Amino acid sequence: MKTRSNLIKGVTIYIPDKNENIVNVLNGLIERLDQENVKIYDIIKIKEVFDDINLLSGQIPQLESRGDLAIAIGGDGTVLKTLLMVRDKEMPILAIGLGELNFMSSTDKTSYLEDLDKLFQGRFYIRSEMRLDVKVSDTELEIPPILNEVLYHSSKIGKTLLPIVKIRMRNYVEYLWSVKSDGVLVSTPIGSTAYSYAAGGPILDTDLEAIVITPLTPTTKIPSYVVNPDTKIFLTAERLRSNPSIVLDGQVIIDLDWTQEVEVSKSSKPAHIITFQKNTNMIRMKRVAERYGGVRE
Amino acid sequence: MKTRSNLIKGVTIYIPDKNENIVNVLNGLIERLDQENVKIYDIIKIKEVFDDINLLSGQIPQLESRGDLAIAIGGDGTVLKTLLMVRDKEMPILAIGLGELNFMSSTDKTSYLEDLDKLFQGRFYIRSEMRLDVKVSDTELEIPPILNEVLYHSSKIGKTLLPIVKIRMRNYVEYLWSVKSDGVLVSTPIGSTAYSYAAGGPILDTDLEAIVITPLTPTTKIPSYVVNPDTKIFLTAERLRSNPSIVLDGQVIIDLDWTQEVEVSKSSKPAHIITFQKNTNMIRMKRVAERYGGVRE
Repeated sequence: MKTRSNLIKGVTIYIPDKNENIVNVLNGLIERLDQENVKIYDIIKIKEVFDDINLLSGQIPQLESRGDLAIAIGGDGTVLKTLLMVRDKEMPILAIGLGELNFMSSTDKTSYLEDLDKLFQGRFYIRSEMRLDVKVSDTELEIPPILNEVLYHSSKIGKTLLPIVKIRMRNYVEYLWSVKSDGVLVSTPIGSTAYSYAAGGPILDTDLEAIVITPLTPTTKIPSYVVNPDTKIFLTAERLRSNPSIVLDGQVIIDLDWTQEVEVSKSSKPAHIITFQKNTNMIRMKRVAERYGGVRE
Repeated sequence: MKTRSNLIKGVTIYIPDKNENIVNVLNGLIERLDQENVKIYDIIKIKEVFDDINLLSGQIPQLESRGDLAIAIGGDGTVLKTLLMVRDKEMPILAIGLGELNFMSSTDKTSYLEDLDKLFQGRFYIRSEMRLDVKVSDTELEIPPILNEVLYHSSKIGKTLLPIVKIRMRNYVEYLWSVKSDGVLVSTPIGSTAYSYAAGGPILDTDLEAIVITPLTPTTKIPSYVVNPDTKIFLTAERLRSNPSIVLDGQVIIDLDWTQEVEVSKSSKPAHIITFQKNTNMIRMKRVAERYGGVRE
């Protein structure tokens, strides 16, 4: 999807903190936006807002994002936090990666000025990346759509959990598995290069609509499951040593009781991420192999 | 898809060998077909035909299958062989499982008579299961569609290979990875419970159209990849200790030169397998967990 450059009239910028690592990029960005007469509505320090959250109350602050585009500067964590907190869940995001892998970035600190040129020339794409909706029974929690994964984990580190994983396809509900383990990850295709990969899960083409269910250190050999996006996944636990916690996109932790049911399903609100290459999905898959040793000489 | 029972007027039966293990089932089947005035065109001993193949010439015999239905009696290996050899690649197959897991069976030796009743009452479904087309450069090989997986492996057991895995999506061709290993598996969703699972790959919902690429004992941590069904996969090798072989559905082995390119892609001819339950895909996924220790008490 291409958009004409003159549609970008204003932006909101999200930064982890105004520290020396990002000040050059931020200044470069501001200058470039100024040249194009793009209004900067706000520069929000994600970290400060995030530190103030009372997570146990389930209050994830929703920040107003004015303009046509949210711009996040930072590593994948900053992108994830921004997407969790931006109130307009459908707003396109341009992410300038400062991290090492930048799986979620539109561009990085070395090529962002060049890519901003492309942006204003209309030479960009908006990719719709699948997200997950999460519901927790017996709570008033309003959980924003999750880009990477939902981790259902023992609330005590090093203590196992006995998660019960059920799935619903059409009208059929079945126990999928229940194995003593640290927990279970429910991931999107884009999340498959993150925690799920580390836990032994497969890498999914982000052009594929699917959900991955990956056990975390199971005591018997349980595989990852890749299911249709219309599958609903239900997570509870047998009473054992500790209660479960859920961790959303590695950013927000919420403690639960073992009886509370967590329901995960495909969100109707995908993330809209700006990219400058048509085959971003392929580049991303290749990068995993390159990063971890599978490069052709 | 339901078909009216009176559409079944004739069948061809495939058996591994007329031994004592199958004679009861075969007799029961023949009696029941006779009651319904269904003609048996032929009873083909798969094993005998298979033993005669000159594989290096690439001649996989194509057996005429008359009637409306192919009926295979035996384990998953028999079903796989039958599907490779039946000339009419679109003919529906009813598989009576004699094996342990029977992932591919429509029914088994204890319930086949009951299920034959359902068949003649029209109470059955025909599932279309994705298959793979395989082309090998510089050969005249005509390879039938593959139901489970294509294994690209060092031709010498215990000697590593350096496979080069490339993928094409739309017009982009990229090296995906190249890692010293025993080889690489390209599997369908239904094949994901077979060799690919044993190699650490994910289990795919057979309602999902996707292809799984799983490395076999890679020397560095390379994940499985799950790609869109329109992806083409190209396999070659760096010259190393031995030439590669390909093994098709665990049944047919063909020796290749390391320069020959193997192209794997989704086949336009799915397998049509009779089932008696609507949620076969879900039952299958659950069975993997049950079989390997992940059962809920």
